[in-house]
Amino acid sequence: MQVSYQDLHDTLRRALAAAGLEPDRAALCARLIADSSRDGVASHGLNLVPRLITMIRSGVVDVSGRPVRVSAQGALERWDGQRGVGALNAHEAMEGAIALARIHGIGCVALGNTNHWMRGGTYGWQAADAGAIGICWTNTLPNLPPWGADTPRIGNNPLVIAVPRAAGHVVLDMALSQFSYGALAAYRGRGELLPVLGGFDRRGELTRDPAEIEATKRPLPIGFWKGSGLSIVLDMVAAVLAGGRATHELPADPELETALSQVFIAIDVSSLASGEELTRVVESILVDLQVRFPGQRTVETRARNLAEGIPVDPSAWQFAQTCASGL
Amino acid sequence: MQVSYQDLHDTLRRALAAAGLEPDRAALCARLIADSSRDGVASHGLNLVPRLITMIRSGVVDVSGRPVRVSAQGALERWDGQRGVGALNAHEAMEGAIALARIHGIGCVALGNTNHWMRGGTYGWQAADAGAIGICWTNTLPNLPPWGADTPRIGNNPLVIAVPRAAGHVVLDMALSQFSYGALAAYRGRGELLPVLGGFDRRGELTRDPAEIEATKRPLPIGFWKGSGLSIVLDMVAAVLAGGRATHELPADPELETALSQVFIAIDVSSLASGEELTRVVESILVDLQVRFPGQRTVETRARNLAEGIPVDPSAWQFAQTCASGL
Repeated sequence: MQVSYQDLHDTLRRALAAAGLEPDRAALCARLIADSSRDGVASHGLNLVPRLITMIRSGVVDVSGRPVRVSAQGALERWDGQRGVGALNAHEAMEGAIALARIHGIGCVALGNTNHWMRGGTYGWQAADAGAIGICWTNTLPNLPPWGADTPRIGNNPLVIAVPRAAGHVVLDMALSQFSYGALAAYRGRGELLPVLGGFDRRGELTRDPAEIEATKRPLPIGFWKGSGLSIVLDMVAAVLAGGRATHELPADPELETALSQVFIAIDVSSLASGEELTRVVESILVDLQVRFPGQRTVETRARNLAEGIPVDPSAWQFAQTCASGL
Repeated sequence: MQVSYQDLHDTLRRALAAAGLEPDRAALCARLIADSSRDGVASHGLNLVPRLITMIRSGVVDVSGRPVRVSAQGALERWDGQRGVGALNAHEAMEGAIALARIHGIGCVALGNTNHWMRGGTYGWQAADAGAIGICWTNTLPNLPPWGADTPRIGNNPLVIAVPRAAGHVVLDMALSQFSYGALAAYRGRGELLPVLGGFDRRGELTRDPAEIEATKRPLPIGFWKGSGLSIVLDMVAAVLAGGRATHELPADPELETALSQVFIAIDVSSLASGEELTRVVESILVDLQVRFPGQRTVETRARNLAEGIPVDPSAWQFAQTCASGL
């Protein structure tokens, strides 16, 4: 099933307004979510809308919460997200980091007490659209055992790094688990094995069987001990700078996941490199690779979905339409 | 074979002075290298000294090269490393980033035209010793095929993230290959298989056989496509900010590897978090993990090596002693 971008955006805008967001904020949030589905990341776009609205209704997400700057030193600021809408908080925090970078060359906003930012890549594209290098990450509820343990104690802590490029930005947007639970479910649904080892089975052996990993709750961090270590330090930096919660302080239930800690760094590349220099370096790297680069598929998918319509999950779309009609 | 820290430091200091480093720079460089061996990372400490001195003698590394600031905007600076001694350049660049962070909260020095920084963790420990969060990375010669290709076109681009901690810093220091060539050789020498898949064999299948991977030159990036993407964007950010070379512009021969690009970011955590807050957050994360954390083994190894002597590779030690005697 496919819908037009305009239809998706308008439906989301009305659904979010009905959930209590002010009109301009409902419109911005609808754009961020519709953009994610348009870019082929419906898992972190429309498909998360039922959970978002459920969490607004349950009071976990406070639609009236707006980020507040609680301390600052020059190019470094700590914000309290007041448990507001995660995507709007994150968007405002990256705007803040970009503004700091315009003045200081580099800027950093650490955002605590916020909610799920939906698609992390959103804030990478945002920075790159502003001509800045963007680096950001979030912690998450415990969904991954650290290497050497068998129970989830660390987060898959998505990391985003974006470099601006005239012909389509280079945007890395990756969680630190080798496969998300969403990806495991998709492979299982298709009756496929994972392309590479993805976690442990019930005998404690590494496996490519997605159902086994869902059963043990032991997915692998990328690079085994390496991604495990990266998750730990990203959580630590986010919680320390934001003055917020660390992964181990977050509830394991996704519908109760709140008070996340996030870091947004922007670098005003124009202060060091001319547009020509940026283009020359980035294009020469990409040409030499001879493989796809992070963000390349996004641009292709975006063009196709704008032309042919955006695929939507029927139940999530139904949910959004029902909310939009005020029911 | 084991030597005392004092003996190792003094021998390195004399060897580096004999290679042409000024006395104070020889002493600092000797300390950085001796510290790496003391911390159990001889592969990037004493064992790299023969290559360093060979590259000084061949003129690839210029002992008189000192970093020069070529442009700046507030908390962001671009330096030219003048092909000087890589470890000294990197140390000075992290000092620069820390100084910027003291003023602006966060600081970034992008260093181009530099040489191999030896142990990346050095600059993480340096930042944490100064009470700052340190984030740094370097590009490298092409030593890793990107995911989807079979020839080395990306670097293993070590990434370092350090968080200060009174009882011993948390320092992640990881290359983006699952196993270094040094690690592959060590497993092969012991007649062991790798603990996890490490690359492709001659039939194009994933393998745990280190000799096969050495033969194909197809080690794996961490997390397959994920580490491959991370390597690409880290190279891009470093080359763009430093105005320096990207991995594909570097020669494949380690003894000709020069003009690297590196990024050093320091964050003055004391401007946002009190010492008590920092300690509380970091310790609570570490206690909950129930596994080792990045840097933990370093502190243990350091204490043991200081007490019992530092293990040295006989041939590297012989080389250093010969150089120290002025031969």
